[in-house]
Amino acid sequence: MKINNQYYRSIFLADDGISVCIFDQKKLPWHFEIVTLKTYQQAAVAISDMTVRGAPLLAMTGAYGMALAMLQDCSDEMVVRAYDDLVSTRPTAVNLKWALDIMKARLLATAVAERVKIAYQQADDLCQQDTHINHAIGMNGLQIIEQIVHQKQQRGDDDTVHILTHCNAGWLATTDYGTATAPLYLAHDKGIKLHIWVDETRPRNQGLLTAFELKQHGVPHSVIADNTGGLLMQQNKVDMCIVGADRVTANGDVCNKIGTYLKALAANVHDVPFYVALPSPTIDYNLPAGHLIHIEERQQQEITTIYGLDSHNQVAQLSLTDSPAYNPAFDVTPARYITGYITETGILTQQDFKA
Amino acid sequence: MKINNQYYRSIFLADDGISVCIFDQKKLPWHFEIVTLKTYQQAAVAISDMTVRGAPLLAMTGAYGMALAMLQDCSDEMVVRAYDDLVSTRPTAVNLKWALDIMKARLLATAVAERVKIAYQQADDLCQQDTHINHAIGMNGLQIIEQIVHQKQQRGDDDTVHILTHCNAGWLATTDYGTATAPLYLAHDKGIKLHIWVDETRPRNQGLLTAFELKQHGVPHSVIADNTGGLLMQQNKVDMCIVGADRVTANGDVCNKIGTYLKALAANVHDVPFYVALPSPTIDYNLPAGHLIHIEERQQQEITTIYGLDSHNQVAQLSLTDSPAYNPAFDVTPARYITGYITETGILTQQDFKA
Repeated sequence: MKINNQYYRSIFLADDGISVCIFDQKKLPWHFEIVTLKTYQQAAVAISDMTVRGAPLLAMTGAYGMALAMLQDCSDEMVVRAYDDLVSTRPTAVNLKWALDIMKARLLATAVAERVKIAYQQADDLCQQDTHINHAIGMNGLQIIEQIVHQKQQRGDDDTVHILTHCNAGWLATTDYGTATAPLYLAHDKGIKLHIWVDETRPRNQGLLTAFELKQHGVPHSVIADNTGGLLMQQNKVDMCIVGADRVTANGDVCNKIGTYLKALAANVHDVPFYVALPSPTIDYNLPAGHLIHIEERQQQEITTIYGLDSHNQVAQLSLTDSPAYNPAFDVTPARYITGYITETGILTQQDFKA
Repeated sequence: MKINNQYYRSIFLADDGISVCIFDQKKLPWHFEIVTLKTYQQAAVAISDMTVRGAPLLAMTGAYGMALAMLQDCSDEMVVRAYDDLVSTRPTAVNLKWALDIMKARLLATAVAERVKIAYQQADDLCQQDTHINHAIGMNGLQIIEQIVHQKQQRGDDDTVHILTHCNAGWLATTDYGTATAPLYLAHDKGIKLHIWVDETRPRNQGLLTAFELKQHGVPHSVIADNTGGLLMQQNKVDMCIVGADRVTANGDVCNKIGTYLKALAANVHDVPFYVALPSPTIDYNLPAGHLIHIEERQQQEITTIYGLDSHNQVAQLSLTDSPAYNPAFDVTPARYITGYITETGILTQQDFKA
């Protein structure tokens, strides 16, 4: 992914080869600032205060946090202490615990003198694995976009592909490429003409992060209010939808950012293909169906206040209303509305899930 | 309608019996400030700078503006000049021109010495007419809410009626009651237990005006992101939807604030009754169907910036993104998704429109 015309991963080592660089995502999309982590405690703060966000990126920050801990002290005690401190930063982050478990087991099985080297190697391996998964999702999604280009050309239509996306299943939440965004970047880099409709995704406006990514990478896009997708589909201005997934159940129901379901309903009515992009571990075969998912209810303040840049170019918060608000974070889209599930191993359809 | 426990119309005469009072709607929902208009020029500015908003209220402000002009000078020249100045403030406001046409014709047909008295009488008549229409819409809508209460009681459910509304077809846009909100106020005043889901209605957040109204009048409500209605209907948390209409075509298609269509689609899938409340002149029998309506595209800035209260309790604007945005103001909901049209003369259904 490019920012200011330079390639970046969303987590990488500084020129000294040991400090860990991330972007301050609390300041995005307004300010682009690289933060350098030199201790595992700094990594823990970056995770807990949301300087980094997105399940895969949290995991990678935790992994590199373990490497920083080994620089400080590579005793067994430090392995355990750093693990405990890091894992407790975001108790519900499954990926974070998964990565830390790998790091801890690997380090305790490694001779003390080798731990610094192995820690950095293992963290880097996890990042590369994440990047490869997303790249593979991108390659599989690219095929779908190429088919749409082909269909549009056969119909004699303009061959710009208009794709609607919701939230930020993007590069910023992963090590590179993102999930829902990976096919977009690969298609753009291959010269396919794209135009992305970016749902702003209230209440937390993660769509603005997607817009930031697309702008930096040079992919044409327009930010829209979440209310707009129905009209666009009615007017034949959307060729496909592609979103991420927080969880997919054994029957193929998709839990994703609130608002996904409304777009899937409109896509269904207007025969617009609706795709979900996800690493295959996101599929929870132990959970039979979407109605069993507990929908997290978040703070009212996410609805009643909003962040942006004030006239002094500072990130600031405004109060929108003092009425009560209700803020469920996710909704569930039944499998019957999903055209396909783009994973790193291939494109699944409803038939691949138990009804 | 009550504000701070006192009954108000949204336009009324000051204690002096001649000055015209309105609320500064640019500062709502954050600050409640009464503005007093003493000249027709002040009325013209209030219309053009959006101190007042909403088609009926613009019309009433224009009518009282003509009365203020007569106080200043009740010559024929002034009738014509005030008309011209007021009508040019918002060239596309059909109701405003309609009211000014009535005022101008009536005043030119009135002896000069009587013009002040007749102007105030005529403006007051127009306000009462608007109030009566909205009250009649409210009474017709109230019947529907009462039926829902009855059904819920028969099923043994909790008898609180949960109603979702979008945008502000409210009291603030009219003289009193509003259109979509009129049934809510009458039901609440009759002791029916209500809970209103208020779509915030990006990009202009008019839902916050609805929340302000409901809060002042004591109607229980929750503000929600526009993304939320699909989940709520899936979870059986919505008993009916009620929205306003900017225009209804001869076949019953409804043009209303962007996002209305997505809620109508979800309501249809989940068998939630979807009602539109409107004064019957909103039906344009000369326009055959909704696809012929030109959808107004508004400034990108409405999406890329947002207003709220800063930490000093001042109304302030934040910049959300510098990406391009696309901002169509309305969408069209096909007649087949509308359960009924609540007008002042009764409740229409699809069968009352030409297919």
